[in-house]
Formats: sequence, structure tokens, C-alpha cells
Amino acid sequence: MKATGNQSVKIIPLGGLEQIGMNITAFEYEDSIIVVDCGLAFPDEEMLGIDLVIPDISYLKENASKVKGLVITHGHEDHIGAIPYTLKELNIPVYATKLTMGLIENKLKEHNLLKSTRRKVVKHGQSINLGCFRIEFIKTNHSISDAAALAIYTPAGIIVHTGDFKIDYTPVYGDAIDLGRFAELGKKGVLALMCDSTNVERPGYTPSERTVGRTLNHLFEENQDHRIIVAAYASNVDGVQQIINCACKFGKKVVVEGRSMVNTISTALELGYIKIPDNTLIDIEEMRNYVDEQIVLITTGSQGETMAALSRMAASTHRKVSIKPGDVIIFSSHPIPGNEKAVSKVMNELAKKGANVLFQDTHVSGHACQEEIKLIYTLTKPKYSIPVHGEYRHLKRHRDLAIEMGIPKERVIILHSGDVLTISEDNAAVTGKVPAQGILVDGLGVGDVGNIVLRDRQHLSQNGLFIVVVTLDRYNNMLLAGPDIVSRGFVYVRENEQLMEAAKNVVRDTLEHCASKNITDWTRIKTAIRDDLGDFIWKKMKRSPMILPIIMEV
Amino acid sequence: MKATGNQSVKIIPLGGLEQIGMNITAFEYEDSIIVVDCGLAFPDEEMLGIDLVIPDISYLKENASKVKGLVITHGHEDHIGAIPYTLKELNIPVYATKLTMGLIENKLKEHNLLKSTRRKVVKHGQSINLGCFRIEFIKTNHSISDAAALAIYTPAGIIVHTGDFKIDYTPVYGDAIDLGRFAELGKKGVLALMCDSTNVERPGYTPSERTVGRTLNHLFEENQDHRIIVAAYASNVDGVQQIINCACKFGKKVVVEGRSMVNTISTALELGYIKIPDNTLIDIEEMRNYVDEQIVLITTGSQGETMAALSRMAASTHRKVSIKPGDVIIFSSHPIPGNEKAVSKVMNELAKKGANVLFQDTHVSGHACQEEIKLIYTLTKPKYSIPVHGEYRHLKRHRDLAIEMGIPKERVIILHSGDVLTISEDNAAVTGKVPAQGILVDGLGVGDVGNIVLRDRQHLSQNGLFIVVVTLDRYNNMLLAGPDIVSRGFVYVRENEQLMEAAKNVVRDTLEHCASKNITDWTRIKTAIRDDLGDFIWKKMKRSPMILPIIMEV
Repeated sequence: MKATGNQSVKIIPLGGLEQIGMNITAFEYEDSIIVVDCGLAFPDEEMLGIDLVIPDISYLKENASKVKGLVITHGHEDHIGAIPYTLKELNIPVYATKLTMGLIENKLKEHNLLKSTRRKVVKHGQSINLGCFRIEFIKTNHSISDAAALAIYTPAGIIVHTGDFKIDYTPVYGDAIDLGRFAELGKKGVLALMCDSTNVERPGYTPSERTVGRTLNHLFEENQDHRIIVAAYASNVDGVQQIINCACKFGKKVVVEGRSMVNTISTALELGYIKIPDNTLIDIEEMRNYVDEQIVLITTGSQGETMAALSRMAASTHRKVSIKPGDVIIFSSHPIPGNEKAVSKVMNELAKKGANVLFQDTHVSGHACQEEIKLIYTLTKPKYSIPVHGEYRHLKRHRDLAIEMGIPKERVIILHSGDVLTISEDNAAVTGKVPAQGILVDGLGVGDVGNIVLRDRQHLSQNGLFIVVVTLDRYNNMLLAGPDIVSRGFVYVRENEQLMEAAKNVVRDTLEHCASKNITDWTRIKTAIRDDLGDFIWKKMKRSPMILPIIMEV
Repeated sequence: MKATGNQSVKIIPLGGLEQIGMNITAFEYEDSIIVVDCGLAFPDEEMLGIDLVIPDISYLKENASKVKGLVITHGHEDHIGAIPYTLKELNIPVYATKLTMGLIENKLKEHNLLKSTRRKVVKHGQSINLGCFRIEFIKTNHSISDAAALAIYTPAGIIVHTGDFKIDYTPVYGDAIDLGRFAELGKKGVLALMCDSTNVERPGYTPSERTVGRTLNHLFEENQDHRIIVAAYASNVDGVQQIINCACKFGKKVVVEGRSMVNTISTALELGYIKIPDNTLIDIEEMRNYVDEQIVLITTGSQGETMAALSRMAASTHRKVSIKPGDVIIFSSHPIPGNEKAVSKVMNELAKKGANVLFQDTHVSGHACQEEIKLIYTLTKPKYSIPVHGEYRHLKRHRDLAIEMGIPKERVIILHSGDVLTISEDNAAVTGKVPAQGILVDGLGVGDVGNIVLRDRQHLSQNGLFIVVVTLDRYNNMLLAGPDIVSRGFVYVRENEQLMEAAKNVVRDTLEHCASKNITDWTRIKTAIRDDLGDFIWKKMKRSPMILPIIMEV
């Protein structure tokens, strides 16, 4: 598969650009398509009531016969979370490293897809052939073990996709990133580098995961005589390992709480990615057999998520753990932008219960900072740079960095989700567009909530609702019953009876006015009610609830 | 007014504790009450549709004849924002320094209260007598000019209230904080120190406001050939002054945009708190007479507020300014917790329009860090410490710091809003409780939205609404019309007609079932409809919209 100037391949990101989350990219050559990652995104603030957002895979469905497989870089939700939804529509094999596959399998079990899905565990250094592509898995470091970069050998040349990565020379588990392989690929000649942009605004290097262990050790030492509760990311297996190491060092028992934490630790333990000495892990029910200072509880909820175990402890709604004065609670991660207020609220609640709430102030990101990104550019010497994994401002900052690294301006390509990039040795251009809007998931509904529904939820949430029901005579439009008014989320009705009476009078006047003008069309009557009542309420209170006139005929 | 062990005074915070915002504290002795600050809070995320939150002043209204006046420490919204609402209920005089009074007067004008309100401008170092209290204004530094700490001379002793403060040895405007006066008060003997807790978690010192000027200067120098747009806090008058200084240095014209920015700068200019050389300030309409590199635009919107000028420019909905490639946009403040996502969104939009978006990375807080707070303790040597201006975790951290500074544990008093603290030389104890829940303001409504309304808005926002209307015969409960279904914010109805038909059948079955059991009571029929339909929708889609059965009788 030698690269020639004549061959071109298509790169089609179906998500992951203009946002952090929902990573998925298709690579296409003639009758072969491979898909790298298949993640979900968490809803924006405006997406009221939405549980999660998954990629639009209509392009893949239209080309179903070409799609050879799903290649996954690592086991985080924004890279694996949409796999079950995709597999329900496209039965394709899944390729990933061991821990990543373990976490994917948990999801497949939940969705009853385990039996029907072909899966292959791939080792770092190993390659797989899918259609006309060869994909090599390269060891990287990230905030979860077993992350991989991919070298995708295409007829147009080698495309290196870093996945989410950082450079950790002293990782907690396993080896450092295989920089040597990146260098070898650079020597062979890399057509394009698709590199993580998350931390491109940060100068310097991300510190080693091990620095976290040191801080933790210090906090455990200072608080030996207390029950210690550590809130951590379930997915940060190495972080959890370091908590367990500290617990062992100080002779404490470890309790694990929170569904995702229990699941991830079980999987990591089973697959050998986490080591817990015998007689260390105890069941939450056994906690009562120990005194407080013997206990370390590892829990979910470090981001203040309402339903997570720690938030329930803070709100006194956790069935098995009550926070007591003297408890030491360590938040082992910084709030993700948008979660600060929720985290602060949980911290206040815990403090009110007498707990000593601590931030573990060494924060270690899972993503490469500027100097690490530069190193990857230096090693791989790509012809083209295609920044990935970031909001627009990150991609743009990444472009500046790539130019600084010597990539000619016209060879740094900022894509939008849905762009079809046709790329060869000689040329790269966006040659098409495919659907790539996220699909909203609400309960069991996938895609049945769209903009109109969201706009209504927004309206209802801000101003509430005002329903006017009138029963009219089918023959002469005479008012037979009503107007009745039902309001929700507007004002407390019992304290505002006068207002409700006045509103009824407005509606009566409107109906009379319509009758006097011989307006009998219901749509026009409804519009008149909506307008008159809307004016009345706005003048009186400067609010605009949703007004729903309902006409019944008898 | 000598302090004696026998006299005790009451301190009653009506807000400002357990939250940052809505600062207001009453001090009471026999028939005298004074009120320090009268601020608003911005609504929490859960307070859907609420515009702002103001303090509950029922205790003051009940004791209206005792209330001698409102003493204001500085001109920020969380200290002055609720003044008009309070003055509408209690006509009391207002005391403040010059700039603070100027900003208050802007509000009074808007609310038509200027004529009816007695006002007195107080200078730093000056005292006023209100009932049995004497209140001395002491010069401090903060992120707005003319901030004051208060020494409140009471029959029980001197209470020092810092207001919001930091120590700036080289302020942009005016003098450094009057540390000498704090020391003198310490020598006289301070009964209690009520000190700002906002930054008590941060070690070290807050840097001088002047450091911001240096960074800004650097950014202006690097971007001389571009139009520069700086997003700043309207209330940070000194920050704005430094932007103007830079503009002048590089020979640029200054345009001011955004209502609050225009208002604040006019007031500060009029009162001499900001200096702008002649021929520097130009009207936004005049911008077209200059080339881009001659222009500096100072605007609101540094926190990503939807309706602020910069957000409108980013969304292309600003009528007078269009963002162009080459524009340099400087965010001169860090996002406040909770605003990160909104700020990021605006930055992405601006970047997409080709603007170069920069964070001014020297961030200077307006609040004292640990070492500054320690200095105030060392100077004032208070007998009691009453931490103020913070969430619970800040107050708790402040307690630790006060204890470290030698205040005995039992003399550090964490209050909750509404607590009545009775304090004397010998003793301090919470002896009562007054109403102090925030009052929600929505449009013109003050206090007419409560928990039930908010809970309904929450419910509607998450799952939308499902209205079922049936018309029954008054005499035999026979179904005369319907069931009709109206839904909003639930699913897009036109694409889900089957579901709507199935739902109607569920309601018909319920009505038949009720009829067969001789259930004629409407409340019971409505409950049955709600239950059956709720089950049906939950089973089908795992969602629970608000279900509103409406029965009309004819």
C-alpha cells in the first residue's frame, strides 16, 4: 500500500468538532469505510430534559455495505458512549484494546447486544486490516489505561490519529507512550496528523499522573484518624489505583460506592488493570464492622452530579452512608466548566454536616499541553494537520501551533462536523457535506425531540403555562361552558384569584368581540384569545407564559 | 458611648451568608436599627424564569419606626441592587460615598424614587449618627472605587465591618486602604470583626489592580494594527480607566457600548472617578469615520451574558457593530463559576467570525486573600470574629483562619441568614430567628413565584406537558366530546400521531372503567386519568410529562 499522489481518501468527522464530546470519524476509500470512535455528548444547558446526544450516522447507514468496522481509541464515554445506539442500526465488528473492550462490553450487556456483536481485542503494536485500510494501535497515555493512537494506512498515505493523549514518562500503570513508534512513522512519511486539541491553549506539559499520588499520600497522612471519602472519576482507573495504594499504605479498608465506580473497578480488576491486595476491599454493608478511621470510601460524584453517590450523601438521601462530623472528604478532580456551581453546592452541604472538605489541589489533566503536542508534530512530521477534539477556539489555536511547527498555512485544515475532506499527497479540500447534527436522546426516545419541542420546554421553563378552555356550541359558537383557566409554573393560583377572574373576563370579551365581528373560525378565535390574554398579562406583570386556548365543541 | 459589659446589641444578617450575593445586615439596639447594604442575588440554576432575588425585609417592616437608615459600603449589585425594592416599602435615608451614591441614584431614577429618598454623601474618615449608633466610613480598596469599611460604634462596643475589600498598595485611583485607621480601632478595642470571606480559600495576596494595566498595555502593543474590543465589567471603574489609558497611549479613540457600561462610565466621569482626555471618547455612530486600527471598543458581556453587547455582536444581532476578521477581542475578566460554558460559547462564535480572541491572563480579584485577611485581624484584634460574605464552606474556612489568628474557637461565630445574634463584651449567642429567605422577582411580580411554581417549571422544562380535555354530561358523566390531547415540549405531535391516538384510547378506557365502577367524583376521575396515562407513557418512552386532565361539563 504505497502512497501515490493520485490516490485520495475521504475523512468525514460525524462529530467531535466544535464541541468536546461525541467523537466519531469515518475514513472512506472506494468501497471501504472504517469508523474511529463512537462517543456521546452530554446535553448543553439549553437542551432541557435531554439525557444525552449521539451522532447522526445516516451517512454510515446509507453506505452500510461499505462499513467494515468500528475502531475505538479508549474507553471514555465521549468515545464509546454511542456504540450501542450505532450497533442497533449497523451490525459491525468492534476493535479495541483490552480494558477499552471490557468497558464497551459492559454497555453491550446493558443493551442486550453482547451476543450479536463481533469483537476483537487488539494489542498495542498490533495491526488489523479492514477493507483497504490497515490500522495499527499505538500505545499512548491518558486519564484511562489502555488508550491508543491509531496509524491508519490508506492508499493515500498514513494518517496518524492521536486519540485523546498525553505524555506520561512515569505512568501509574503500564508503559509510557510509544514515542519511538511515532518517530518511525514520521520517518516513513505521515500524510496527516489528527491531534487532540483539548489543552492546546495551555503552555508547557501536563504533569505525570504520579504527582497526584504524592498529594493524596500527604492528605491521607494528615487525616489518618478520620474516615476518608474520596470522590473520583469512575473512568480514571489509575487515579483509583492510587487511592487504593494510599489506603493500603495506611492500613485502611476500601469501600467502593456508586454504580459506574463499581462497574469500572470490577472490569479493571477482572482484566488486571487495577491491583487490590487481599482483604482490602470490603462490601459497603461490612463498613459497620470497622471504626471510622479504618475506612476509605471511593465514590462517584466529584462533579456534583445530582444522582451520584456523594451528592446523595450530601443531601442525606443515600441509604447506606451518612456523613458525620470528622469525615474527611477529598475531591480528587477539578470541576469541569459548567459544573462549578453544582460542585460548590455539594461541598457546602458536606461542610454543613461537619465534614472537612478538601480539594486535592494537584490537578492532572488527561490531555497534552502545548509542548507535548509540539513533540508529536516534531516526531511525525505530517504533511497536513487536521486538529481534532476541541471547540472551535481550540481548533483555531491548534492551527496557530501547527503553523508555528512549520506546517504551511494551507495544509492546516479546520473541519466542521459533517465535512467530507478529500485528501491526497497533493491536495486536500472539503468536497461535500453529510448530516452531522447530534441526535437527542430523551428516555427511550431517540431523535423524537427536536427544536420545536426544546423551544416549548424553554418557554414553559421561563414563564409557565396558561390554559384557557371554553366549550362552544357546535352550531352557533355560543359559550356553553368556561372559560376555565388552568395554569402551572406561572403564579400560585390560590393567591391570585383576582388575576384569574380578570383573565376570564378578558377571554369573555374576546369571544364577544369575535361573535360581534362574525369570526367563527377556531384558529382565528384561538389567536385572538392568545393575543388579548398575552397583552393583558404582559401589561400587568411583564411576563409571557405560554398561552394555550382549547376550544371544545358540543 | 463607652462599651460596658452589660450592654448588648443585636446583629441580624438578612442575607449574604450561605451565598455570595444579597448582602444586607441589620444592627439593632433598643429603638435604633441601622441596615448595612441592601443587595440582590442572581437566581440559581433551579430558579427557572426568575430575574433576581431580593432580601426579605419583613423584620424591618415590622420594626419600621426603629429603622434609622441604610448605610452602603460600595456600589456593586450584590450590595445596592435591592435598594429600590426596599425603599418602596420603607422610606429611609441612604448614606454612601460619592461614587456609590451616584450609582444608587441611577437606580432610584429608574424606579422613580429619586425625589422621595433622602440621601447623604459621606466621605472616608467621616462619621454619621443614626439613632444610638455612630458609623464611621473607612477607606478600603475593591474592584470598584470608593469602597468603604464601616466602624459601627454601638453601646456594646465597636463593630468593624470590612465590606468587600482587598489591600491595594498601588491602586489605580485614589489612596490605598486606610490601614492606620484599622490599627487605631484595634488600639481602642474592637468588639467584633465582620470580614469578607470570598477569597479565604486562597493563600497569599491579591495583586494590585495596576498589574492588569501592564498586561493590557502589552496586548495593545502587540495588536496596534487592529480594532481592539475589550469586554470588561461595567462596575470595575478602575479597570475601565486602564483600558482608556492604554487607548490614549496608542492614540486610539474609545467607543463605549452596552447599557450598564455607558451608565457607569457616565456616572464615574461626571463624579471625577474616571479621567478621559478630550477628543478620546467618540460616539458609536462616529466609528465609521475612523479606520479599524484607530478604534478601541469597551463593551459589556465579559461573562457571556446572553443579552450583553458582546454576545449580540458574536451572534450577529448587534445593530451597530459587526465582528470582522482581524478584530482583536480581549476578555478582561475570568468567568465567574457557572458562566464558563456561556463565555466559551461566545468566544467560539467570535473566533468563527475570524476574530482573534484573547484572555487577559492576569486576573485580579476584588477580594482579600488569606494574608490580607490576617493583616486585618492583626490590626483590629477583635474580641469576636463573625465571618461574612461567603458560602458556608468559605465561612467555615474563615473560622479556621480566625482561630489560627488567636480568636478563641467559641468567639468565632458562623451565622446563618435570619439569625439574631445578641452580642456583648461577655457573651454572644443566637437568640432568635427572623425571616430571611430570598424573595423571587419575576417580571413585575415580587414574591408571587414560590416553590410550587418553580417545581412546576422544572417539571415542564424536563418533560413537557400533556393536556387531556374531555367534556362530560353534567347529569350522567357521559363523554360528550373528546378526549382531546394537546401536548407541548413533549414530542413533535405530527410525527407521533399513533402515540396520540393510543393515549386517547387509554383515556377512553379509564373513563369506561370509572363509569363501570360508578366513580363520578371528578377529582378521582382526574387522578385515574393521570395515573393510567402516566403509566402508559412511562412504559412506552421512559418519560414523565406533566399530565393535566381537564374536565368540562355541559
